[in-house]
Amino acid sequence: MRVLGVDPGLTRCGIGVVEGSPGRPCQLISYEAVTTDPAAELPARLLRLDERLGELLATHRPDGVAVERVFSQHNVRTVMGTAQAGAVAVLAAARAGIPVELYTPSEVKAAVTGSGQAGKAQVTAMVTRLLRLTEAPRPADAADALALAICHVWRGGTRAKFAAAAAKSGGAA
Amino acid sequence: MRVLGVDPGLTRCGIGVVEGSPGRPCQLISYEAVTTDPAAELPARLLRLDERLGELLATHRPDGVAVERVFSQHNVRTVMGTAQAGAVAVLAAARAGIPVELYTPSEVKAAVTGSGQAGKAQVTAMVTRLLRLTEAPRPADAADALALAICHVWRGGTRAKFAAAAAKSGGAA
Repeated sequence: MRVLGVDPGLTRCGIGVVEGSPGRPCQLISYEAVTTDPAAELPARLLRLDERLGELLATHRPDGVAVERVFSQHNVRTVMGTAQAGAVAVLAAARAGIPVELYTPSEVKAAVTGSGQAGKAQVTAMVTRLLRLTEAPRPADAADALALAICHVWRGGTRAKFAAAAAKSGGAA
Repeated sequence: MRVLGVDPGLTRCGIGVVEGSPGRPCQLISYEAVTTDPAAELPARLLRLDERLGELLATHRPDGVAVERVFSQHNVRTVMGTAQAGAVAVLAAARAGIPVELYTPSEVKAAVTGSGQAGKAQVTAMVTRLLRLTEAPRPADAADALALAICHVWRGGTRAKFAAAAAKSGGAA
């Protein structure tokens, strides 16, 4: 399955696309950081992010989208922009009819490093190793987005199966 | 000018449409609260809100959209949903090419009651009086959305003129 991961941010939004299947190494497809001008008005910033996400979803046609779940306990100064960028990403995927899964930072860290308390450097190091890259993806937001995508391939496959089974048996997906 | 006001909320999003010009009484066009099921998944909730906002923008074709500016100091439990719903509203207007203005709750209260510290009941009472309604708009979210729209008619006209003048003279709008 192909997964597009999003580390939401209004000034810098990390995007990472990988392909793989649960329990096997993932393959890097693409990554980037979508940036918006902090001096620009909010509508223009959200529109720019929405348009780039739409292009990337159309180009890579992922089977699933993984977005970091934002908590209000985070840095109060940046949490609003993160929540707004996250909403744009979730909505862009929903509008394209692509299933979205949200993961907490601890879930992602645990998936790629084995520890939910791992630091940023450790996550980047593991993403670099897991995707067999010769150097670390930059900026860090892109590495985090790739970690989200890897996490979804490994965990999301299972969730998707459960959801499909539930839908088939008439339960809520 | 016709203005669509949005009091953002994920479970209940207030929408109010008024028509008027600065310094004159506004006329009520329409109001409602768009609700989404708290038990539903986030993508489905954002999509429902986006779709209803798109319908309302197409139906009422407002000249401007006024959205409440969300602060992270608000109720921590609900602030994330508010930020997400606000982002959906701002993006929906931006995608439709309609100018968006953000107002703080104090700006809105000051515009309709004369005091930035006014309570909810006072805002609702003034909205009812200013629009010459026989009873208060319900729910309160809809009344708040109407207050935002009135605030924008009265204040936004001026801002829009400044922006147009700045654009004309080659400055940033």
